[in-house]
Amino acid sequence: MGGRTLAARPLTREAFAPFGDVIQSDGTEHFQVNAGAMDRFHSLAQVDIGSQPDARAIISLFRSREAISLPYTVTLMERHPLGSQAFVPLDRQRFIVVVAPPGKQLDPAELRAFLTDGTQGVNYHRGVWHMPLSAFVKDQEFLVVDRGGSGNNYEEFCLEDQVTIVGEPRDELAKTP
Amino acid sequence: MGGRTLAARPLTREAFAPFGDVIQSDGTEHFQVNAGAMDRFHSLAQVDIGSQPDARAIISLFRSREAISLPYTVTLMERHPLGSQAFVPLDRQRFIVVVAPPGKQLDPAELRAFLTDGTQGVNYHRGVWHMPLSAFVKDQEFLVVDRGGSGNNYEEFCLEDQVTIVGEPRDELAKTP
Repeated sequence: MGGRTLAARPLTREAFAPFGDVIQSDGTEHFQVNAGAMDRFHSLAQVDIGSQPDARAIISLFRSREAISLPYTVTLMERHPLGSQAFVPLDRQRFIVVVAPPGKQLDPAELRAFLTDGTQGVNYHRGVWHMPLSAFVKDQEFLVVDRGGSGNNYEEFCLEDQVTIVGEPRDELAKTP
Repeated sequence: MGGRTLAARPLTREAFAPFGDVIQSDGTEHFQVNAGAMDRFHSLAQVDIGSQPDARAIISLFRSREAISLPYTVTLMERHPLGSQAFVPLDRQRFIVVVAPPGKQLDPAELRAFLTDGTQGVNYHRGVWHMPLSAFVKDQEFLVVDRGGSGNNYEEFCLEDQVTIVGEPRDELAKTP
């Protein structure tokens, strides 16, 4: 089949910074709101909708129809040149994140793979290449915050040489917390 | 103590329509994305950030420091005149939603109370009066999508005659699914 393997690392803010934001409360500054009833972890991500007049931020849900497992072979990457896109799991499930820097062309040598810890969501910055969202569990729901409006906000890139994502240790990481 | 009781009804899209959006997949049109791997329940809510140049949609987390239970007495309502505010629970927990129509003054006779079913989030439309977010469980996290930017986006209203929210039957509704 050709291709190569890529080890998925634990997702951290530092490692993910070139690609987007990690949405999680752990290790984040916060302040009290609602007369002390709640902690607010403020503005963990900003929604980037570009500058078109009809652009707006919208809230959607994704629900998985299939389950994947590791090792997993990535064949297609996508990006949204007009806006950011955030995914937050609603059932504390881990998921896999494969990214490459923004740009018209994707450089397969620049691919990076991460596994979330179950509490984490991600916000891909505008134009960042990413693997289409996949879940380790069927019927897993994710909240999605991205851009609505006119214009072509979808580009894809087919990897000629397949990249197979492996965990480390693969079985441990693919489990839910 | 004076005041009155208000029965919390199950949250439905129809009943909540004057106040905002219900964010849930059940009963919602959807289409397949990601080569059939995901169903997308598209644009269940729009983020309203008004028209100020520095306004932006932001993603935050709230985590509860306290737990409430029913019956629960509401003494304070708040509203955000410059933008919408969405709350989606990350652990499938029910929560209570008390609202009143937008307007400079709150009319206590117009209060409505709802209980979510555990799968639901809400998006309060701009200016809608609502009870500050409370949780039935401590350390419960909610994803929050609202407006960042300059300007005073917070107004509150103290209820002179307290309103006590009751379930129907109260014990059943306050439980998690």
